[in-house]
Amino acid sequence: MFPVYFDNAATTKIRDEVIDVITNTMKMNYGNASSTHSFGRSSKSLIEYSRKRIAKHFNVSASEIVFTSGGTESNNLVLRSAVRDLKITHIVTTKIEHHAVLHTVEQLEKEYGVSVSYLNLDRNGQIDYSHLESLLQTDKKTLVSLMHVNNEIGTLLDLRRVAILCKEYEALFHSDTVQSVGHYSLNLAEIPLDFLSASAHKFHGPKGVGFAFIRKGSGVKPLIFGGEQERGLRAGTESIHNIVGLEKALDCSYKQLKEETDFIKELKSYFIKRIKTEIPAIVFNGLSDNEDATTYTLVNIALPVAPDKSAMLLFQLDLKNIACSKGSACQSGSTQTSHVLTEILNDVDLQKPSIRFSFSIYNTKKEVDYVVNVLKSLV
Amino acid sequence: MFPVYFDNAATTKIRDEVIDVITNTMKMNYGNASSTHSFGRSSKSLIEYSRKRIAKHFNVSASEIVFTSGGTESNNLVLRSAVRDLKITHIVTTKIEHHAVLHTVEQLEKEYGVSVSYLNLDRNGQIDYSHLESLLQTDKKTLVSLMHVNNEIGTLLDLRRVAILCKEYEALFHSDTVQSVGHYSLNLAEIPLDFLSASAHKFHGPKGVGFAFIRKGSGVKPLIFGGEQERGLRAGTESIHNIVGLEKALDCSYKQLKEETDFIKELKSYFIKRIKTEIPAIVFNGLSDNEDATTYTLVNIALPVAPDKSAMLLFQLDLKNIACSKGSACQSGSTQTSHVLTEILNDVDLQKPSIRFSFSIYNTKKEVDYVVNVLKSLV
Repeated sequence: MFPVYFDNAATTKIRDEVIDVITNTMKMNYGNASSTHSFGRSSKSLIEYSRKRIAKHFNVSASEIVFTSGGTESNNLVLRSAVRDLKITHIVTTKIEHHAVLHTVEQLEKEYGVSVSYLNLDRNGQIDYSHLESLLQTDKKTLVSLMHVNNEIGTLLDLRRVAILCKEYEALFHSDTVQSVGHYSLNLAEIPLDFLSASAHKFHGPKGVGFAFIRKGSGVKPLIFGGEQERGLRAGTESIHNIVGLEKALDCSYKQLKEETDFIKELKSYFIKRIKTEIPAIVFNGLSDNEDATTYTLVNIALPVAPDKSAMLLFQLDLKNIACSKGSACQSGSTQTSHVLTEILNDVDLQKPSIRFSFSIYNTKKEVDYVVNVLKSLV
Repeated sequence: MFPVYFDNAATTKIRDEVIDVITNTMKMNYGNASSTHSFGRSSKSLIEYSRKRIAKHFNVSASEIVFTSGGTESNNLVLRSAVRDLKITHIVTTKIEHHAVLHTVEQLEKEYGVSVSYLNLDRNGQIDYSHLESLLQTDKKTLVSLMHVNNEIGTLLDLRRVAILCKEYEALFHSDTVQSVGHYSLNLAEIPLDFLSASAHKFHGPKGVGFAFIRKGSGVKPLIFGGEQERGLRAGTESIHNIVGLEKALDCSYKQLKEETDFIKELKSYFIKRIKTEIPAIVFNGLSDNEDATTYTLVNIALPVAPDKSAMLLFQLDLKNIACSKGSACQSGSTQTSHVLTEILNDVDLQKPSIRFSFSIYNTKKEVDYVVNVLKSLV
């Protein structure tokens, strides 16, 4: 059983079948996909086959999928080009986005003087839709960037509702779907968003590869200039083994979506039930114990621990062979409190240590029992 | 023997030992390097161990190595930040750089109005050093960007001479060393350049990973914003398996540098000797039959073929199971003549079909014999 990996929102174990196709691709297909000879053509066809299959999962055209080095690059590509090339002068977002969006938006504000509006949020991290609508009533060319599933508290956005609202007011809509691609089915023929970002390592694929969905005719231009790869939208020799691995991981996820979702849902609700029984004073941040309002993959809990014990908590869990996190891994090196929780909690609640536990198909109820028992011993 | 892969400047076969460490890393180390728990720490330590070992090959500090998705991203990172953050207003480069530099510079010219000077070249693609010196006599804050080894014709730059000249005139110096890292030993304690770019797949490593050397205290800021990875210089979850593969590939290359260089040199000079014997009218573009002025890894030849046969040549070589290229793979999808040859050859020489053959340790003299015989049959 040990160690227990309950940090699947940070990254996931790569599926064995994904490792196999990556290894085989490295062995068999080393041609540069831009070369016209047989080695090149075989690499090219692997990439285009992957692109087609990925596009199908979202009901979009293959040409709307652009491979990148991951979710962060995808976010940067879309946001920068929206401001530089699509002449966006106003960005609507929230203060609880991932730093890949938040810091990029701040940088664009500095570089281009674009104005940024942050949506009002309730204490569960849900956006105020009427505030959004009022912000869209502007002459400024506007881009809305909102994540589908919050990576720290799991709050779900109504993607379709936002997309339709944006269409109505002629704003562009980008969604960081890094936590939902591979976990939720997304039919982009019915959700009229313009851009989304995805990362393979969040759904049991390899690290260092992801994609952006860029709706046809959007006019987006590259972040990285050079060769004509990705129809001129992303220069650099393609990471064929990683792209093939991404496709395989996504395919496995969507093929087994129903069973795997049910399995993880059951784990999460078991965790909630067990911890409520053993530590009745537990508080769920956001709505993470509400199955309809948050993702089935994670919970974020505030533990009833004296402030002096708080600092040591993650360290103690680590000693007990439990991997979990305070918030986003991308900031976990720092000692700062989560920017997400800071935004939605009051000062008293912020005193309590909060921990995110995130689940995958590789977890078990036995692990939940163990973790809940350890937590009980620590409070 | 078949097919014959003589396109090693486009990309290289991954070494078996590199594939092994990549596969093992995917199996054993899936933690997010930014996570503080044991899974994260083990990934982090793999990355930092790789960084240290890579830095050692160049005699620099580990903190001066920034992992990226490849050579193109490294070039973009340095060039964009030089203009945006280091306030460069003048770039000196040549028209025979790789498109990853050339198109990025053009883009920066458009976005920031930076002025660009292109160095005079002789018909072998060698820069005019006195022209460089005169261009450096300016009040404008200048960045020089010159590749070490030209990817099409193999011409070598005197890196140290340019670096010292740049120091003298207080210009920054960036070199695209994508074709030389792993093939030439580079002691950056003795070559005072500021930035270099490298790509793993050019030295038998994986595609989708590279690094930039960024001299300490340079003030470079990110191209991709978000998390605090790479000491805040490159956001995005690290591609651990690819980074470990890069390190392994570089280590193998430098450990066996002498023997492997000798082996490839011998192959190249055998190719030159054989083709001069069989096709006396052959012309070597650049100085690619001169061992001192060009890299030992490639030749670029103009074939004495009637213009009407010319178009079919690469196609016929492909049919004969020979992989080679007209020029850079990154533009080989296009029907345009190489921008490098267009720059250095006269109109008459440009009529003849030119082909680049590039070699590696996996090639043999038998393959050379076969290719020369096929070429003879086609002229």
